[in-house]
Amino acid sequence: MASRSYIALTGGVGGAKLALGLSRLLAPAQLSFIVNTGDDFNHLGLHVSPDIDTLLYTLAGEANPETGWGRRDESWRFMHELERLGGETWFRLGDRDLAMHVERTRRLGDGARLTEVTREIAAAFGVRYPILPMCDRAVRTIIATAGGELAFQHYFVRDRCAPQVTGFRFDGAEAATPSPEAEAAFDDPELAGIVVCPSNPFVSVDPILAVAGIRQRLEERRVPVVAVSPIIAGAAIKGPTAKMMRELAIPNDAVAVARHYRGLLDGFVLDEQDAALVNDVAALGIEVSVTQTLMVTLADRIDLAEKVLQFCNRLG
Amino acid sequence: MASRSYIALTGGVGGAKLALGLSRLLAPAQLSFIVNTGDDFNHLGLHVSPDIDTLLYTLAGEANPETGWGRRDESWRFMHELERLGGETWFRLGDRDLAMHVERTRRLGDGARLTEVTREIAAAFGVRYPILPMCDRAVRTIIATAGGELAFQHYFVRDRCAPQVTGFRFDGAEAATPSPEAEAAFDDPELAGIVVCPSNPFVSVDPILAVAGIRQRLEERRVPVVAVSPIIAGAAIKGPTAKMMRELAIPNDAVAVARHYRGLLDGFVLDEQDAALVNDVAALGIEVSVTQTLMVTLADRIDLAEKVLQFCNRLG
Repeated sequence: MASRSYIALTGGVGGAKLALGLSRLLAPAQLSFIVNTGDDFNHLGLHVSPDIDTLLYTLAGEANPETGWGRRDESWRFMHELERLGGETWFRLGDRDLAMHVERTRRLGDGARLTEVTREIAAAFGVRYPILPMCDRAVRTIIATAGGELAFQHYFVRDRCAPQVTGFRFDGAEAATPSPEAEAAFDDPELAGIVVCPSNPFVSVDPILAVAGIRQRLEERRVPVVAVSPIIAGAAIKGPTAKMMRELAIPNDAVAVARHYRGLLDGFVLDEQDAALVNDVAALGIEVSVTQTLMVTLADRIDLAEKVLQFCNRLG
Repeated sequence: MASRSYIALTGGVGGAKLALGLSRLLAPAQLSFIVNTGDDFNHLGLHVSPDIDTLLYTLAGEANPETGWGRRDESWRFMHELERLGGETWFRLGDRDLAMHVERTRRLGDGARLTEVTREIAAAFGVRYPILPMCDRAVRTIIATAGGELAFQHYFVRDRCAPQVTGFRFDGAEAATPSPEAEAAFDDPELAGIVVCPSNPFVSVDPILAVAGIRQRLEERRVPVVAVSPIIAGAAIKGPTAKMMRELAIPNDAVAVARHYRGLLDGFVLDEQDAALVNDVAALGIEVSVTQTLMVTLADRIDLAEKVLQFCNRLG
């Protein structure tokens, strides 16, 4: 198993937990992350990539464990002054976090691709795992709500997920293609599995799958594709997944998530609390593994990662 | 004298000292500042206006008395992280200072003029004196040196004024015009004098004068124009003025400064230490006032401001 490699598709906090677990089991040459950039946005003139940052800070041991976003040991002097100047303060940028956005924006302005910039910044944090944006061009997740369309961060942060969701679209996805680095990860002859992390299916994983070349790779099924349910006992650990499912009139259980990914998955990981749903998922033609998916401690993350890799290998 | 109004042309630290003194004697309706923006530059994707910021922080009581630039009670967590990311760190941006540049850049990106943005930001700092950029379009001071041309901040901050200066040009000045707000200040029927603050003649005042409409206003001489010497006993209090004069083979004394401004000035304020130079300046056809121009305390600033206003009124 030492030389086998894996790709993990991941979004925000939930995905980053499993990603951290995977990183404790596999070497950088064995594990690539393809990360949602649908919730990237330009804020205060800066290019902000929330999911890349969450993953990078998590892998670097720099994540803020209390907030679930941003950096640990953060300070807010910039934000305090910006508020005084009447600037936009609904999206909080800490003094330390800000360096990331300023440097990323500068490098993109120089003409570098997001994938290149991310590699440089990750290297500066001592993170050697390839953190690959789902694509280098801008794809923007738009939330359709009862009150009209909203840019993702307006829905998610500014409006705190309060608006009733009616649908999603991924602006720019039709024209997007995977980066050469992502293509290379899929083409790795040692590739043994693709893991869909327990991220929000609608706004974290679907934007990645909206990049045509990536969906196609999963559909081809050259290697097992395994997803971990982000829903446990009808609830999301964090974020609006279950609320969205209710508003979209989808049953808010793990089976509905498996159904959502139908045609793309070989295996689905259910939480122990959802053991009763095994047959419903199996009826979709998807293999099932049941384990503890709730990740509280670092050991939980590593344990789940190990189970997911074993499941991949069993299906391969 | 209560309703008389004045315009002060000013650059960096030296000019801001006299500006502060003037502000303690005159009401906001009586005093407008026209500020050098030739050393504005785009840094890390942000629009930085060093002289506007120095003046604004000084008038707001927010200037850093130790450094002469930036804000008091500053912290450097952003800069520390930027260094870690391999970003450019030769121009130091504090956590609090950064809010200014981010908000200015955002507003300019919205299409606002620099004059409008400056007014908004000044209002947020409780500063009601009009701080008027010399123009709204970009004019960039370029330093010609023995080793080639340098952008101003590269010469001034990155290279610490070490290169030998051979000349100056003000890129974009030909096409620049005063803002409507600056025109209005010159057209104020109560205007009683124009003060050229003790700023560097070559890189603080000359860029302002390179804006055609502004030089013309001084040449017209509708009201007295009075300059305060930035050179005392052959030395500049701060900055490279005297060094530049030596490199340009100009005598580094106050007379040379008066000669530099010839045709624009009615009066020139010499320091007590340069009392022996009165006749040399008078020989240029310029009235002379001798007083203490070294400003150490706030009282010094106010005293000098009072002398300058009295001199203006005597010449009016």
